[in-house]
Amino acid sequence: MARATKKTKNMDNETRAKLVKLAESVVKQVQKKENPIIQIPTRSLSNVHFDPKKKMIRMGDQKHSRMFFNTSMARKFMQTMLVASTVKGELLRSGKTTSIRDLYYMMKHTVEGTRENTFEEQDESDPIIEDLEVSVDSLREELHLFASNKGAMVGDMTIVDSGDTIDLRRMGSGGWSIPSIVEPNVVQFKKVNAKFILLVEKDAMWRRLNEDKFWQKHHCILLHGQGQPPRGVRRLLYRMVNELKLPLYVFVDNDPWGYYIYSVIKQGSINLAYESQRMAVPSARFVGLSSFDKDRFKLPSNVTIQLTPEDINRAKQLLSYDWFQKAAWKKEIRNMLRAGVKLELEALSKKDISFASDEFLPKKIKDKDWLD
Amino acid sequence: MARATKKTKNMDNETRAKLVKLAESVVKQVQKKENPIIQIPTRSLSNVHFDPKKKMIRMGDQKHSRMFFNTSMARKFMQTMLVASTVKGELLRSGKTTSIRDLYYMMKHTVEGTRENTFEEQDESDPIIEDLEVSVDSLREELHLFASNKGAMVGDMTIVDSGDTIDLRRMGSGGWSIPSIVEPNVVQFKKVNAKFILLVEKDAMWRRLNEDKFWQKHHCILLHGQGQPPRGVRRLLYRMVNELKLPLYVFVDNDPWGYYIYSVIKQGSINLAYESQRMAVPSARFVGLSSFDKDRFKLPSNVTIQLTPEDINRAKQLLSYDWFQKAAWKKEIRNMLRAGVKLELEALSKKDISFASDEFLPKKIKDKDWLD
Repeated sequence: MARATKKTKNMDNETRAKLVKLAESVVKQVQKKENPIIQIPTRSLSNVHFDPKKKMIRMGDQKHSRMFFNTSMARKFMQTMLVASTVKGELLRSGKTTSIRDLYYMMKHTVEGTRENTFEEQDESDPIIEDLEVSVDSLREELHLFASNKGAMVGDMTIVDSGDTIDLRRMGSGGWSIPSIVEPNVVQFKKVNAKFILLVEKDAMWRRLNEDKFWQKHHCILLHGQGQPPRGVRRLLYRMVNELKLPLYVFVDNDPWGYYIYSVIKQGSINLAYESQRMAVPSARFVGLSSFDKDRFKLPSNVTIQLTPEDINRAKQLLSYDWFQKAAWKKEIRNMLRAGVKLELEALSKKDISFASDEFLPKKIKDKDWLD
Repeated sequence: MARATKKTKNMDNETRAKLVKLAESVVKQVQKKENPIIQIPTRSLSNVHFDPKKKMIRMGDQKHSRMFFNTSMARKFMQTMLVASTVKGELLRSGKTTSIRDLYYMMKHTVEGTRENTFEEQDESDPIIEDLEVSVDSLREELHLFASNKGAMVGDMTIVDSGDTIDLRRMGSGGWSIPSIVEPNVVQFKKVNAKFILLVEKDAMWRRLNEDKFWQKHHCILLHGQGQPPRGVRRLLYRMVNELKLPLYVFVDNDPWGYYIYSVIKQGSINLAYESQRMAVPSARFVGLSSFDKDRFKLPSNVTIQLTPEDINRAKQLLSYDWFQKAAWKKEIRNMLRAGVKLELEALSKKDISFASDEFLPKKIKDKDWLD
């Protein structure tokens, strides 16, 4: 919570300094009677590339200028300053965090002496927040803004969350609900016996593995992100992999959406390329479902689902991405296209309700039968 | 988890006995060389009514017959038996739980000697599960089936979940993730200091209240269900209200969707009318947002959002429901329609980021300014 620990204060001071620097540069320009300009790194596809060395999707160096004395930019200039000022004046000052929707409401007002609103809709304020993130190089979480709370975690580890010690070995059937902000000042890792991390796409499979105490038998950390993992889950994965030096396995449906979930965890996404270096986990391993698993594990034929035209298009698109150019991945995706079917995690239950916990996953990991 | 506690065993034995009774009645009919028939309570609008005494939406007494020797019913008859048999033979036997999607996969196979599949799609098996629930009068959770895990909880209470003691006062910023199955054999309540329960529609507002330690200052239990609360959250509310004798306050957006969320918690839904008596909380109180709160709490005018034509239609529909016939409710809904605008929980942040925690909710509860 809002406890002003030393760590929190340090992080906040750093973010505050960045925002003050931005404001001061504008003030200086005003004092020199220049047209105030802010430089904003460009967040478009043209400025995004796959970095084969770092193995992640990254943003390039292109920037564009946002000027105050420019009829097409003045409104956005004002909005950028307003976001920066509200984050510093309201959130950092009070030590409180809020949602991006809430921030929109906090900032929305009619400019004095005019009939002009600062923001009309949230879709005006969201991109400005992203502009500010890249301009001052602060993650949204460092600006005290959160996304939705999604996902749960159990496992062979104790954590501290906002000063509360939470033993993830004693979290029952529900687990610890993963908050949106998991920066080091909020969440710390303690007493870690886990040997690896397993991220499961679906909460139903997560529940099965938790009920089977998979994490206890195999000494791991078990989490799900309810489909595409939200920022909190991705950031937590990043931190656990880098700080605890644990391997990460990703367990998803065999369909283009499952491949995509894996790829966002591994190398980041095009839209949020500027966050890759603090979110992406290039060492992540894909343990399935693979399109070869149906034969390898002798799953019955009636558990497959026909690919839709949309699935087929999406799979072909994935084949064209730089980050799916490894031979093994091309083979994997082409095999799915050839078979014309997809497989959900639930298909494993057809063999036995605990087949995933008792046989599939242990064998996959033991045999190093993964894609990376 | 699957620990075979005494409570679990008792509950499972009861459910098993009901399923066996259903099967035996079919066997008897076969032995008498009669056409096997199952009686299934009718789950359609015609068999649903609002019970003004119990103050909940309930299912009537209509039943229909499902026969084996009837070309239009034989397939469904087989499916009903298959669901009952899989629940008993796989889930109750092993003490394991699963999702309804998983159950679909477990049951799907080609009938021997034919090219006929037991089920083609999950939308065939889901209604059969509901048929079985009403036929043997067992909640889905008692059949060891779960819905999605959604929602989180903190507060002035300790619980036991699957044998693990969890102090909800020490759950950090994340909270305990509410599982889908919260029956007494899984979740028990201990050391309860809470004086009331507060259900919040949105996780962002939940997070704000948790960060402000609202539950600590006001001794309450604080939970959210990520929008429309899932079954686990509704069942948990029911149990806490009835077993702990605590009042329940519901805190939602001021729009037809917020009214609807409240009404489902309070008197159940038309679709799941047969579950009202084990899910509905007729004593639930609506603490806002009310369409009168904008004036009462002097919220600025630019925090409102225009009602869409869909909102207006939905609001008019609510006005026609039996359970919205109280004068105060008609006034509330008509006032929203007259103003032509809706209000989100975030609108309160416009006054101050902690306005909801520090002023709005304490005043609402102190002044008994609620609708019920």
